[in-house]
Amino acid sequence: MADFKYEIVKTIAVLSESTKGWTKEFNVISWNGRDPKYDLRDWAPNHERMGRGVTLSNEEADKLKEVLNDQVTPELTPAGTLKE
Amino acid sequence: MADFKYEIVKTIAVLSESTKGWTKEFNVISWNGRDPKYDLRDWAPNHERMGRGVTLSNEEADKLKEVLNDQVTPELTPAGTLKE
Repeated sequence: MADFKYEIVKTIAVLSESTKGWTKEFNVISWNGRDPKYDLRDWAPNHERMGRGVTLSNEEADKLKEVLNDQVTPELTPAGTLKE
Repeated sequence: MADFKYEIVKTIAVLSESTKGWTKEFNVISWNGRDPKYDLRDWAPNHERMGRGVTLSNEEADKLKEVLNDQVTPELTPAGTLKE
């Protein structure tokens, strides 16, 4: 990745951890000094390296919250296959 | 990106659309024929190209839902700056 700066303004939650110690995290991050945004991303231990991820504005996070809450009946079974 | 296959098993929601027509979407996608997972990602119009994103298991999506619902007081102001 090219030259960029970021600051993890607030760590909110770790969603999961892989066997190699990478964590999937939901945080608030400022990219290149810009206003902070929500950020969903994989991280190496101690945030030493970052994986791919997506940033979310307030509005996008709100919409995602609604969508997740609407999933009253989850689309996926516990095993990860799609329900009939 | 290298050789891989994917199938958008179910389109769930469009969270936002950029001025160039790219959409940030939450869907259920099967990667390389594996069991489908939730997927949060940017897409070009008509899903012709994909941007970076993250996949989420059932458990990760559940955890994210809890985290978003716990954000009773959002961390970000409507303008996208961090609250005091």
